[in-house]
Amino acid sequence: MAKNFTKRSDNYSQWYNELVIKADLAENSAVRGCMVIKPHGYSIWEKMQAALDKMFKDTGHVNAYFPLFIPKSFLSREAAHVEGFAKECAVITHYRLKSDPNGKGVIVDPDAKLEEELIVRPTSETIIWDTYRKWIQSYRDLPLLINQWANVVRWEMRTRLFLRTAEFLWQEGHTAHATEKEAMEEARRMLDVYSTFAEEYMAMPVLKGVKTASERFAGAVETFCIEGLMQDGKALQAGTSHFLGQNFAKAFDVKFLTKENQQEYVWATSWGVSTRLVGALIMTHSDDHGLVLPPKLAPIQVAVIPIFKNEEELQRISEKIIPIINALKAKGISVKYDDRDTQKPGWKFNEYEFKGVPVRLAVGPRDLENNSLEIARRDELTKETIDFDKCVDYVEQLLEDIQSNLYNKALDYRTKNTVEVNTWDEFVQRIENEGGFISAHWDGTAETEEKIKQETKATIRCIPLDNPLEDGKCILTGNPSKQRVLFARSY
Amino acid sequence: MAKNFTKRSDNYSQWYNELVIKADLAENSAVRGCMVIKPHGYSIWEKMQAALDKMFKDTGHVNAYFPLFIPKSFLSREAAHVEGFAKECAVITHYRLKSDPNGKGVIVDPDAKLEEELIVRPTSETIIWDTYRKWIQSYRDLPLLINQWANVVRWEMRTRLFLRTAEFLWQEGHTAHATEKEAMEEARRMLDVYSTFAEEYMAMPVLKGVKTASERFAGAVETFCIEGLMQDGKALQAGTSHFLGQNFAKAFDVKFLTKENQQEYVWATSWGVSTRLVGALIMTHSDDHGLVLPPKLAPIQVAVIPIFKNEEELQRISEKIIPIINALKAKGISVKYDDRDTQKPGWKFNEYEFKGVPVRLAVGPRDLENNSLEIARRDELTKETIDFDKCVDYVEQLLEDIQSNLYNKALDYRTKNTVEVNTWDEFVQRIENEGGFISAHWDGTAETEEKIKQETKATIRCIPLDNPLEDGKCILTGNPSKQRVLFARSY
Repeated sequence: MAKNFTKRSDNYSQWYNELVIKADLAENSAVRGCMVIKPHGYSIWEKMQAALDKMFKDTGHVNAYFPLFIPKSFLSREAAHVEGFAKECAVITHYRLKSDPNGKGVIVDPDAKLEEELIVRPTSETIIWDTYRKWIQSYRDLPLLINQWANVVRWEMRTRLFLRTAEFLWQEGHTAHATEKEAMEEARRMLDVYSTFAEEYMAMPVLKGVKTASERFAGAVETFCIEGLMQDGKALQAGTSHFLGQNFAKAFDVKFLTKENQQEYVWATSWGVSTRLVGALIMTHSDDHGLVLPPKLAPIQVAVIPIFKNEEELQRISEKIIPIINALKAKGISVKYDDRDTQKPGWKFNEYEFKGVPVRLAVGPRDLENNSLEIARRDELTKETIDFDKCVDYVEQLLEDIQSNLYNKALDYRTKNTVEVNTWDEFVQRIENEGGFISAHWDGTAETEEKIKQETKATIRCIPLDNPLEDGKCILTGNPSKQRVLFARSY
Repeated sequence: MAKNFTKRSDNYSQWYNELVIKADLAENSAVRGCMVIKPHGYSIWEKMQAALDKMFKDTGHVNAYFPLFIPKSFLSREAAHVEGFAKECAVITHYRLKSDPNGKGVIVDPDAKLEEELIVRPTSETIIWDTYRKWIQSYRDLPLLINQWANVVRWEMRTRLFLRTAEFLWQEGHTAHATEKEAMEEARRMLDVYSTFAEEYMAMPVLKGVKTASERFAGAVETFCIEGLMQDGKALQAGTSHFLGQNFAKAFDVKFLTKENQQEYVWATSWGVSTRLVGALIMTHSDDHGLVLPPKLAPIQVAVIPIFKNEEELQRISEKIIPIINALKAKGISVKYDDRDTQKPGWKFNEYEFKGVPVRLAVGPRDLENNSLEIARRDELTKETIDFDKCVDYVEQLLEDIQSNLYNKALDYRTKNTVEVNTWDEFVQRIENEGGFISAHWDGTAETEEKIKQETKATIRCIPLDNPLEDGKCILTGNPSKQRVLFARSY
């Protein structure tokens, strides 16, 4: 186990911060709130991008790129949108520096002031819908199914690596449709893409639901979300898909000629996931020994460590193990053979364990004699001895087992930590102590929602899709309620 | 041929601008100098990224991500660097907007002024070397071989789509080494990667060389470049690789402990190519019929167009052609089967021709009877009739032929347009009329270089690598010269 590494049970928040740093995933930069994503962290994001990008393309989307900057006036066009984003944005006012006449260094050149300030995009609906006006004339131009991989900036005051940073990387889909029905179907389709990705790749079970009005995206008619449950009982919103109605089409005057020769406003969606997913991944599976990665998102799936005292031993091991490594690679498995003589085997064991490599093979001179090697799995921290001739198939199967084991463990945890609660006292007690998802009745008003938030810091994470109707009484006000909703404290 | 499309011989510059727009590659945005890269243009960039990213990884590099913003004071640390970049940068001075008390819209909140302004990165040496100080302690931490895919901003006054835009997409490699020799080898290695990419993927022959002092990257000790020749006789710098010496290590105090237990400054390189390559690709191969793409970078390599009058005909054609399409796909060829009934075949022929699809297959009812189909190649605008059972192999070979034909045509053009010139009169006449690369003697002084630039707009594109020594006299001053250098007007 890594030295000086806080246990989850002692301080979950500190455990997370230390893990991100010690596993070389990311660190804070010299710019307040902006992180440096280190190679190990970035390689996980690259795996996520590759899987998501394929899913987007398989559902008919193409990529494009829109400007980093948004004219200030664009933000104001959609009333709710500006309300949501103006308070936390980076504003560009000048386009030149000059030498400081009073000393060293450079100062902003007052003669290079922009006529209209530019905002670094916090999200791109406005600049994109200003562009779509030129691209959409007729129903033949629809649907328009475009995604963008980009960086965005929101001037957050309290930041945490991956979970909440001023700059983050994300993808944002922006689609345009001829009918309300099609746009709503698209918003739901992409929510399904996100939940499939979360469950099949991240091994993170998520609940799909719809946000209450107060938690909606600024400018959306309806916001759908996927919500995961972290190991400390707090929920994490892992992705959102918005049905935007005609709000942005109206704000940017985007109309199209229907088949019936009518001018109508276009219907829209937008949807996004971000580097926040890396934080969710960490908090779903990792343990007191460091990072745990599901095989499908692990940059290195198998680390192979030869145990040798001299060059001759290494050579004998390599002769035996390299064909096995090649056979694993031929199956599409990513393998790292760490035959460095600058580090001891024990150091390497710790290193790959802490960095979350799912499977570790170790082979020494005695193993050669026994025609076997040691296989360790990161998720359960167990070891087995397997014959050489069986180990390729064994590792292939083991990677699948680890992927499903991680999902099942996380699902078990969520199941155990999702409870129905019917009284206010129980609600408060539960939120304060165990946490988790609490399914409870709510009277449907924003006032009650706000009051519950103020008293307990719990928010309505979502109204689950296909929620069963059930008569009940609001846990706070006792007023009648038609369905339960999901409460939790959240990231 | 596309209507209202300017010919290259009439106005090359206008031809380029129209091509970019009409082929749906990119357009200007509402933000001055920033472009929107449309799906077709972005898909070419994605192909470039994929090939380059693999080449970087194959040479031992990993990706990471550094902040978009650079504290103003960082720029000043390296004297030449600030001189080069301070004059054209986007400056963030505030972090909040608020409602305008005097009317509609939002204004910059004067209470949200940053203590120190932030610059949107024009390049990332400063923020990265500030980070490397924390990552590098000992020779064991070296070499550090990191690349970043990112957007950067340089406040250019005169912009052109892809060629020169305020915001552009690029990759920037930043490496750190223990010795001068290793860093110099790295700079040369990445120059080779760029030239291999340009020639093998873009089918664009390039000259490798070193820049004169006045054309060096701001902060570099030596700048290497690859230079292509466009169809109008102007050169285009397609990629640069810089040997930075210890300049940034000294500016950011990055030292390491050598094996001999000495503290020494680290040696550095940086290297980059950008979306400018898309402009270079267009200008190297395209013609008066629109875009021409080399197969290795074509998002769609083969377009298949059925010619049918009714559903029954289409079905008969599809039955025959879909197995062929599947056989092509099985060979890794990207194929689009355009069986839309909303557009006529002639429209589709024009569309794929203008957008640069390398190979077009057309098949109608008569072709079914003859057991053959029509194959058209975009580069030569020629057609052939090929038997069904031969066409899969034929297309595979044809794509290779087109790739090498495009390279050879471009190489022929460059060879014909590279001349040795020995007198000033001939130099001026050549620059004014034919253009192209001019190999001429230069006395080695910055003054002469500047004077030639002012009088002819020609610059020294590079001193070719492994340039033969040859005694001669400077074309302008007549002073003695030891070697010829390459002049051209350039983008």
